[in-house]
Amino acid sequence: MSVADPEAAPVAGRGPLAGLRVLDVTSTIVGPTATLILGEQGAEVIKVEPPEGDVMRRLGGRPREPGLSPKFLHFNRNKRSVVLDLKTGEGREVMRRLAERADVFVSNMRPRALGRLGLGWEALSALNPRLVHCTIVGFLGGGPYEGAPAYDTIIQGLSGVAGAHVEPFGEPRFAPFVLADHVTGITAAQAICAALLARAGSGRGQAIEVPMFETMAGFVLMQHLDQRTFDRDGHMGDPRIMSPDARPLRTRDGFICVSANTDAQVRAFFEATGRQDLAEDPRFSTVAARIIHVDAFFRLRAEAMLERPTAEWVEVLRRHDVPAMPCHTLQSLLEDPQLRASGVVTKEKNENGEDAMLGLRHASRYGESGVAPSRMAPRLGEHGPEILRELGYDEAEARRLLAARAGVSPEGVSPEGASSQGASPEVPAS
Amino acid sequence: MSVADPEAAPVAGRGPLAGLRVLDVTSTIVGPTATLILGEQGAEVIKVEPPEGDVMRRLGGRPREPGLSPKFLHFNRNKRSVVLDLKTGEGREVMRRLAERADVFVSNMRPRALGRLGLGWEALSALNPRLVHCTIVGFLGGGPYEGAPAYDTIIQGLSGVAGAHVEPFGEPRFAPFVLADHVTGITAAQAICAALLARAGSGRGQAIEVPMFETMAGFVLMQHLDQRTFDRDGHMGDPRIMSPDARPLRTRDGFICVSANTDAQVRAFFEATGRQDLAEDPRFSTVAARIIHVDAFFRLRAEAMLERPTAEWVEVLRRHDVPAMPCHTLQSLLEDPQLRASGVVTKEKNENGEDAMLGLRHASRYGESGVAPSRMAPRLGEHGPEILRELGYDEAEARRLLAARAGVSPEGVSPEGASSQGASPEVPAS
Repeated sequence: MSVADPEAAPVAGRGPLAGLRVLDVTSTIVGPTATLILGEQGAEVIKVEPPEGDVMRRLGGRPREPGLSPKFLHFNRNKRSVVLDLKTGEGREVMRRLAERADVFVSNMRPRALGRLGLGWEALSALNPRLVHCTIVGFLGGGPYEGAPAYDTIIQGLSGVAGAHVEPFGEPRFAPFVLADHVTGITAAQAICAALLARAGSGRGQAIEVPMFETMAGFVLMQHLDQRTFDRDGHMGDPRIMSPDARPLRTRDGFICVSANTDAQVRAFFEATGRQDLAEDPRFSTVAARIIHVDAFFRLRAEAMLERPTAEWVEVLRRHDVPAMPCHTLQSLLEDPQLRASGVVTKEKNENGEDAMLGLRHASRYGESGVAPSRMAPRLGEHGPEILRELGYDEAEARRLLAARAGVSPEGVSPEGASSQGASPEVPAS
Repeated sequence: MSVADPEAAPVAGRGPLAGLRVLDVTSTIVGPTATLILGEQGAEVIKVEPPEGDVMRRLGGRPREPGLSPKFLHFNRNKRSVVLDLKTGEGREVMRRLAERADVFVSNMRPRALGRLGLGWEALSALNPRLVHCTIVGFLGGGPYEGAPAYDTIIQGLSGVAGAHVEPFGEPRFAPFVLADHVTGITAAQAICAALLARAGSGRGQAIEVPMFETMAGFVLMQHLDQRTFDRDGHMGDPRIMSPDARPLRTRDGFICVSANTDAQVRAFFEATGRQDLAEDPRFSTVAARIIHVDAFFRLRAEAMLERPTAEWVEVLRRHDVPAMPCHTLQSLLEDPQLRASGVVTKEKNENGEDAMLGLRHASRYGESGVAPSRMAPRLGEHGPEILRELGYDEAEARRLLAARAGVSPEGVSPEGASSQGASPEVPAS
């Protein structure tokens, strides 16, 4: 059964950011998330990688081909790759030429390392005053943690993401996602576009600093500051979210999510579940009453769902105008008819036109611009030769630079790309 | 002890989006998140509310003043509020005038309801061809769920957010955040800015559709498609994230997050924890070996951390260049020195200049634009009179419209705002 409907591709187009040039010196997840979005929206993204390549090429899950792990493939679509050894003068010279013609520079290197490579705001804006220079950092400059190393789990722990699990789960836990990296990456893509809009007025670029810790702490506190907003001793944590009863409900064959909030929905829920006798029960007939009797209400709701399979309940509840949907496993999600119709999951063909792998596309729709044509994540250095040509290097010079490891052999995968650390995803992550 | 350092306010400025006008017809969390970001970046956001106000005014936690719940306050900063009854011809006429002068229209109403109110793309673009018209929907149009109601928990269940909890938590659970709303809201703010950049070239606005389900399904699958990318029977779920051992580590007085990934970091970790004897242990000296002996490695790591308090370990590990940070509770997060220095948490003064409440500010920094001056979330209809004046209505007409409930009394809070449903956060959430 196909997971992707070939008719469901998003509106073809050039994307709202067509014509923009993004110089991408990012790695792992946070930076590549930002440039992935810009690339799917049509920006020309050039991913500059060190000779060994973005670490995600090896640590993003077992690859089918060395250097192309699943996670790397999904976070690096619609980008071209060139390898530059920035420890060499030649590598830095190519980088300078790239920076002169770029609209956006993005990096998640630590500021000091960036400065050592001559890629700080001062250096690059001197070359190109229209450049929007975005550094994604662990922590804002000026604070005590400035320059400290930031990994997703360390930020989840420090920002309260793990701490928000204590009330509903009984202990601090990480969300089962690279959440801080992914959310901060989307945030960076938004900040970059805001700065590009400012440039449209001023004609000047600027330096942007997008911090993982402060971004995630704000994310957590907006939702959970609650009564602490007003009182030093006020309770923190949104009670509706922290309630251990706020969870998917077990059915006869799986789990379902039901959202019966208004009095009308609750009445309809009782009818749908054959408990008309409760429709006028004073414990449940008003919001105020359900607050007092919330435990009894949740218990009734949970018991009712056990009686039938998920699909049957979804049907019955929908007929009664009670919002309800199946709670998918990762596997059943791929068979969801709405997802299949959306074009978000695509089947990629190989050179022989056979279905080779699953790809993922941008979810939003742009009526006029559409989204950029789909392009698989690049092999390491795959586009070095064409990018050097675009920069005006002649064939001989380009060959010399590639040989000198300012670029990488046209075959693509560098020895380092395949070797060192092996390609397994089970590297202790912490 | 102050949670906010008065010196730590973000660079004052007008913000990168100064001069942009956003017509905000959103409610709950997903839409207000998008317009919050635009407002903090300097856009002029006019929040149009029905006579009873955004439901979050009442359902976002116990308010100190009717209609101003904590969650409403934190998701609606830097916006002005006008009440329009769009069921009246006069209300719709004011709305048309607002749409004529807006750059962006944002709504998370269902498309059919939007059309009935004459606020669909066709109607508004006919009034203002430069308008970027963003509808945040539950599901992309054209699929079987088109137009179905979407609530955060229903989307978390359907998109695999809850399903991703099965492997590490043993059952599907919701993330302890309004995750689908919040992430889709940031995504919408980014899509809006991309469309504004396209307009800078074409001179034309366009319709954008930002779907909660497809956005979150992509978010989950990029991270967890894993081997299913290549094989129909391949394992789904990033093993590094799914491991039940990937969690904060207990110390003598709390929890800590440690990230020892490279061989050098692991050696340093053993030294820091007084287990130099293990530094050369073949089970732990290479990544490949740690993969095989991951359980023993995690057990050693967990046992070591029990010996000292968190602060002591953070110090010791930092001295050994092992990335480590405290795992905060929601409460201890507010005392974090980096957060205090960041200006993300601010103390709001009341009319008498006394510290009245905690506010939250935008985390990213814009070297030239800065962020917009801070402005508390509006009372219901607070800015009706001034907004009507800006639209060119004279005093008498404005008074008549406000009396006719196209606007709301200058006192701000409408009777409905304070009444109906009460102000408690413990309303059964689904």
